[in-house]
Amino acid sequence: MKTDIQIAQEAKMEHIRNVAALAGIEEEDLEFYGKYKAKLSAELWEKVKDRPDGKLVLVTAINPTPAGEGKTTITVGLGEAMAKIGKKAMIALREPSLGPCFGIKGGAAGGGYAQVVPMEDLNLHFTGDFHAITSANNLLAALLDNHIQQGNKLGIDPRQVVWKRCVDMNDRVLRNIVVGLGNKMDGMVREDHFVITVASEIMAILCLADNLADLKQRLGRIIVAYNFAGEPVTADDLEATGAMAALLKDAIKPNMIQTLEHTPALVHGGPFANIAHGCNSVQATKMALKMSDITITEAGFGADLGAEKFMDIKCRMSGLKPDAVVLVATIRALKYNGGVAKADLNEENLEALKKGIVNLEKHIENLQKFGVPVVVTLNSFVSDTEAEKAYVKQFCEERNCEFAIADVWGRGGEGGIELAEKVLNTLETKESHFSPLYPDDLPLKEKICTVAREIYGADGVVFEKAAEKQLAKIESMGFGNLPVCMAKTQYSLSDDQTLLGRPSGFDIHVRDVYVSAGAGFVVVLTGAIMTMPGLPKVPAANGIDVTDDGKITGLF
Amino acid sequence: MKTDIQIAQEAKMEHIRNVAALAGIEEEDLEFYGKYKAKLSAELWEKVKDRPDGKLVLVTAINPTPAGEGKTTITVGLGEAMAKIGKKAMIALREPSLGPCFGIKGGAAGGGYAQVVPMEDLNLHFTGDFHAITSANNLLAALLDNHIQQGNKLGIDPRQVVWKRCVDMNDRVLRNIVVGLGNKMDGMVREDHFVITVASEIMAILCLADNLADLKQRLGRIIVAYNFAGEPVTADDLEATGAMAALLKDAIKPNMIQTLEHTPALVHGGPFANIAHGCNSVQATKMALKMSDITITEAGFGADLGAEKFMDIKCRMSGLKPDAVVLVATIRALKYNGGVAKADLNEENLEALKKGIVNLEKHIENLQKFGVPVVVTLNSFVSDTEAEKAYVKQFCEERNCEFAIADVWGRGGEGGIELAEKVLNTLETKESHFSPLYPDDLPLKEKICTVAREIYGADGVVFEKAAEKQLAKIESMGFGNLPVCMAKTQYSLSDDQTLLGRPSGFDIHVRDVYVSAGAGFVVVLTGAIMTMPGLPKVPAANGIDVTDDGKITGLF
Repeated sequence: MKTDIQIAQEAKMEHIRNVAALAGIEEEDLEFYGKYKAKLSAELWEKVKDRPDGKLVLVTAINPTPAGEGKTTITVGLGEAMAKIGKKAMIALREPSLGPCFGIKGGAAGGGYAQVVPMEDLNLHFTGDFHAITSANNLLAALLDNHIQQGNKLGIDPRQVVWKRCVDMNDRVLRNIVVGLGNKMDGMVREDHFVITVASEIMAILCLADNLADLKQRLGRIIVAYNFAGEPVTADDLEATGAMAALLKDAIKPNMIQTLEHTPALVHGGPFANIAHGCNSVQATKMALKMSDITITEAGFGADLGAEKFMDIKCRMSGLKPDAVVLVATIRALKYNGGVAKADLNEENLEALKKGIVNLEKHIENLQKFGVPVVVTLNSFVSDTEAEKAYVKQFCEERNCEFAIADVWGRGGEGGIELAEKVLNTLETKESHFSPLYPDDLPLKEKICTVAREIYGADGVVFEKAAEKQLAKIESMGFGNLPVCMAKTQYSLSDDQTLLGRPSGFDIHVRDVYVSAGAGFVVVLTGAIMTMPGLPKVPAANGIDVTDDGKITGLF
Repeated sequence: MKTDIQIAQEAKMEHIRNVAALAGIEEEDLEFYGKYKAKLSAELWEKVKDRPDGKLVLVTAINPTPAGEGKTTITVGLGEAMAKIGKKAMIALREPSLGPCFGIKGGAAGGGYAQVVPMEDLNLHFTGDFHAITSANNLLAALLDNHIQQGNKLGIDPRQVVWKRCVDMNDRVLRNIVVGLGNKMDGMVREDHFVITVASEIMAILCLADNLADLKQRLGRIIVAYNFAGEPVTADDLEATGAMAALLKDAIKPNMIQTLEHTPALVHGGPFANIAHGCNSVQATKMALKMSDITITEAGFGADLGAEKFMDIKCRMSGLKPDAVVLVATIRALKYNGGVAKADLNEENLEALKKGIVNLEKHIENLQKFGVPVVVTLNSFVSDTEAEKAYVKQFCEERNCEFAIADVWGRGGEGGIELAEKVLNTLETKESHFSPLYPDDLPLKEKICTVAREIYGADGVVFEKAAEKQLAKIESMGFGNLPVCMAKTQYSLSDDQTLLGRPSGFDIHVRDVYVSAGAGFVVVLTGAIMTMPGLPKVPAANGIDVTDDGKITGLF
């Protein structure tokens, strides 16, 4: 069987100019990065902004399991399928992070015959957006420590610096460090921390900003530290905003690449889906809606985190309204949720399927709470049996969801035509009445409780002292009207990653809370959240190489 | 008076496709980065490698002073002037570092009407080469610490890790840090250090590599640490080479931009000129020689560091042979060398000029030792008087150097025609008999002494104990045949930055020595060398901004 990178490298790509032309974008509005990548110019938005929007379809999934769900694969394949049945479709995805490519996870370009290409470029530096974010993040950090060094006029409390340096690398020894050792000229000693670039608040800001002006507003509001009086110190206070924005002037422009079938894909931004909102940029999604009849986009992790944040953060802030949601599941993952060990997933097991399908059921109910029609799709595996598929189909239809089986991994767009038709049918026959889950003016604690009860199915929320204190402080600073961004395990609807299926009779435990004032949300930490991954015993990097004539091997 | 960025932004740039076409490069061999930047494809080299080389002209300077010399400005202006008088010229420059742009130094694109453009892009992320180097550098560091964490099969001594992380930022608190704090899963605690990206050995490697295969060989040889037995541990030992090379697959391709007068310029690589060799990439220089009649290139700092390393490191390794050297001076800098305070440099002072010109004299003598004809040029200032200019002219001609005054800052190529004609005359009438200063097989200590005596004019060299010990170890490891890379103050011919003019009766003090086995040279430290700059009290970043429609301001 061919690997993803083999399939990707065998592809005959179109020059991106031709892909863009099919979408009605002229060459003068493209900034090429080689032959197969382009940024869309800022001027393009001015030309198209008054057009009517196409339809917006969000792809999300049940809680992830080791069995794999293939959400990005479905997103790419659905876009290809839409194009195959004559629709003008565009895909809007997140950019992958460099760090995990060298660790364990591999790239994030879809899979099989439903990939975006050039896969190697996308997974390595792409158009440099993440490097620009890293630079802006670390410029702010350097300006902050330099301010302390040069007299500390703002009275920054070195014990209360909250801005962290970042690097797009899995590098565990940088989680907790001491900086400023040496002599007087080498800075003030303090404890510091690195996060991976996707965890930088600047990543979330870039993805939520409407344009360069909005970006600057948001960057300026970033809280970097507190002074000795406990008051926030911002990027604006450090006069850092303009230089950071200058570093981001190209990164803010959406990137266009293509699927294996030449469907245009805007791949732009990639914030974490725990401490941030986990969706591609607002600008890319809005651009796609102007340039296509149907935009297929994706949110991180399972629907309890990704879709909830897509609705309550991205759509709330940007005015975007989803017209339908595609909820991805696999028979294997549902059986895993029903208690089957990974090794036994290839065998038919209707009992386990019935037991595990409650996870899907809960996500259907959750998505329906946002007023958006739901289509369920099974990402098919050869091990799926007819009886199993029939059971899931009936289950979904009884819950007023269209249902389709997709084999885009093996067959590309052709394998997604049934799904595309069901999505089209839903868009034509079911109206979306989208609204976020809670109003802006609900107190922060109640927002948290609403998400915990309505989405996770919790009985209640237990707030630790630190969290209570932070919530009060955040509201007193005037941020009580922001949405909440829940940082929770992606493996369970609860905050205990071992509870599969549809857990009940549990509380959500809120350990700490902080405000991302630039991004515009309040991060709620349940349990320990890892913002700097480590490398495994045998890193993927050991197997990656490039031939003497420039062909990448070993990336997966 | 207009600032550099104003002049640059008012320029009407040609699409880089047209600039390349003038140099005979077809669009299929270009990888565009927007409209005004392109990388040259790896295939282009295969097409042109059997052509005869054009002439190679190196631009260097007297020791830098606060008065400013304008070496890059002359390099750019000379290229423009050559084009103006009908020669097919190409310029080969270093890429500027992002860090200093936000500190004090500003950009590095030439000045006035002798600039390369787009100036903002060049000074910000350009085509991402430095980000790729940063990533490769930090991947190696992460793999190293991960190896220690995961059982340390290679027996790496955490006290003898010599590989440092890097960031392209002036960030003094990262000079000396402790990493790996926290718990067992957060790594092994050890002292660590960040350097600025231009100080990474990978930067030097990229600039010295002939092609991707050579790059991989060099990366693999990097010594990252010593084991408990004191033996070197390399990047190859860590199985890191392939993944690093994959990260550098595009960075290794030369970048083409243009001057204000549309002369093609290859801007590629930018190693430090103290702990590294301070020249643009071998690949860019070789490519320029194939695509033009005359290639104008530049070396860092004054001729005692930059030109010496250009000859003894870059040319020795690559087989390049300079046909002429342009030595840049200013009347102001010569008077400063003669003891005049910066505030008084506008006044005619023949006495001080005579006293200070010995600095120029020594550099002329030095360059002639390499067997290469020398042209001296005065970068003209309005304060220069006729008597002063006449004096310098006669001084140079008496020493068998052509002489020309250049005003390329104020008049672009037009202001460099006299210089261009003198350079042409030199190329036509004087043969270059280039050879490096010392043979490969001279012992390392004697190589150091040769440079110190012949180039710096020192009486001798004092080796500290640590240096003696390292030299013996490096020779025992089999690196005795490498050239030496002297890390010395750029402000004086001696290792004492306060000694201007042509110091005599001094020794060079060698504090420590280490081998850059991948780059292929032995670094000799005289005094403390700063590899991570800091930010000043009022960083340039405070004044940098971008307008809502994407125009950069405040960069200089």
